[in-house]
Amino acid sequence: MFKKVTIIGPGLIGGSMGMAMRRRGLADLVVGVGRRKESLDKALKVGAIDRATLDLKEGVHGAELVVLATPIGTLDGLVPELPLLLDPEALITDVASAKVRVIEVIASALRPRPDVSYIPSHPMAGSEKSGPLAARADLFEGAVCILTPLTNTFPESKSRITRMWRALGARVVSMTPQSHDRMVARISHVPHLAAAALLSYVEENEMALSGGGLRDTTRVAGGDPDLWIDICRDNRDEVASALKAYADVLARMADSLRSGNLGPLRDVLQNAHDKRRRLTEGADKGSTKQ
Amino acid sequence: MFKKVTIIGPGLIGGSMGMAMRRRGLADLVVGVGRRKESLDKALKVGAIDRATLDLKEGVHGAELVVLATPIGTLDGLVPELPLLLDPEALITDVASAKVRVIEVIASALRPRPDVSYIPSHPMAGSEKSGPLAARADLFEGAVCILTPLTNTFPESKSRITRMWRALGARVVSMTPQSHDRMVARISHVPHLAAAALLSYVEENEMALSGGGLRDTTRVAGGDPDLWIDICRDNRDEVASALKAYADVLARMADSLRSGNLGPLRDVLQNAHDKRRRLTEGADKGSTKQ
Repeated sequence: MFKKVTIIGPGLIGGSMGMAMRRRGLADLVVGVGRRKESLDKALKVGAIDRATLDLKEGVHGAELVVLATPIGTLDGLVPELPLLLDPEALITDVASAKVRVIEVIASALRPRPDVSYIPSHPMAGSEKSGPLAARADLFEGAVCILTPLTNTFPESKSRITRMWRALGARVVSMTPQSHDRMVARISHVPHLAAAALLSYVEENEMALSGGGLRDTTRVAGGDPDLWIDICRDNRDEVASALKAYADVLARMADSLRSGNLGPLRDVLQNAHDKRRRLTEGADKGSTKQ
Repeated sequence: MFKKVTIIGPGLIGGSMGMAMRRRGLADLVVGVGRRKESLDKALKVGAIDRATLDLKEGVHGAELVVLATPIGTLDGLVPELPLLLDPEALITDVASAKVRVIEVIASALRPRPDVSYIPSHPMAGSEKSGPLAARADLFEGAVCILTPLTNTFPESKSRITRMWRALGARVVSMTPQSHDRMVARISHVPHLAAAALLSYVEENEMALSGGGLRDTTRVAGGDPDLWIDICRDNRDEVASALKAYADVLARMADSLRSGNLGPLRDVLQNAHDKRRRLTEGADKGSTKQ
């Protein structure tokens, strides 16, 4: 599918992409670019990449596909250098969890290079772990990958990126960056904040006595705080508005509890129970997967 | 340990107790009492009980230990009959998730029978599933079981119930009913409501695209709404106050997000991340388990 693929930031997501592309023969050569040799050595060791370099120019040279997989916070410094380094007609994708702002940064940097195609991706797969040692070749199997193509995207470029994600096992869905950011605020970012808030007010001695419920509910809160702050910053308006919608539901539940009229509380519990059943059924059919 | 144990309501918790006691030879005979023959037949079929009866008098007759494992809502109707039926010096326990109100009901009903010992239990184990088919002999392995003994409990009775739970694999902790209810509101009831609220505001088409994060975070919301309404009603004040504490944390996070001063938000995420790590480490050491 590709002669040379360059993964800038071969951590959990980028490393899993490299590993899966290598195992499935999608790339003749996968090169990892990073800022720390130790991290690149780990990526080499687990088989996420064929070669490693600290030099962006060397890494990107000759790449048909460049994957921007560094944390959002690092992208800003790196992106302005890209236009001078990319091969003619290179394909670019990123894997950021919030798209509108990242797209602004990347697309405006790439404006001098109309031959280059940028197709933003967001694979909805992850883990509370991070780094190349957490990479897995099957991370995208059964996951959803959302593309948020720009209006001027070449259809052939979108189609290549779609085929690439499908070859990694993902189900590909397209939507606008705005719809994407609104949706992930609700189904991913606020659930993360909600889980973190739960742990925040629980005391250590209480935690030691808790059952599996608290542990499952708060699993995502194990994620890297810096990564999540970046995501929240980049998707600030949508996260704030989804957080308000969530707080409104909780307030309704609290009112119902205090008033003794438990009807509204029961409605929320019943609605959640029914949705949960459908969510689990969907998972059993393999339509979603972490 | 016991000649005859009677489990009133051999569902997930009661059935798991019966199954574990039978396998571990803790009881010569385990009798299940229920209101529906179909449910008792299931309990027999999975090996949760040796015998079944719809008749409370017959079931309780001759029992050394009676376990009240019906949903809280059903206990109220059943408990007043018990004093006339119990054998001399019988031991009674229940498994309710909120203790103060349940203890009032049971202890006041048992007042005419000072020979009988009532030691309230709350095994911190469960599942979003319910009913005898969900029962597992290892449900309490590694779980915490909280006893909330009354001030007039015979030490020997408390010691027998403690030995019974330990024999089922649980770690036994004692506290007052008030401390218990305050704590479970925070580590169990509010996490449940928080998960239900998350699902409540998410739309079906968004759910289909979600990753493993949402699925794990909302697992507990699959629980039976009627059961949870009973729990919330019985622990109303503590749940309302814990829900407020939770909402306060979320409000602080939302303020931080809106103001652009992300320091307080980052503090919550870091604190959660650190606690989460310790929670997982505790689980690895086998100190907690669902």
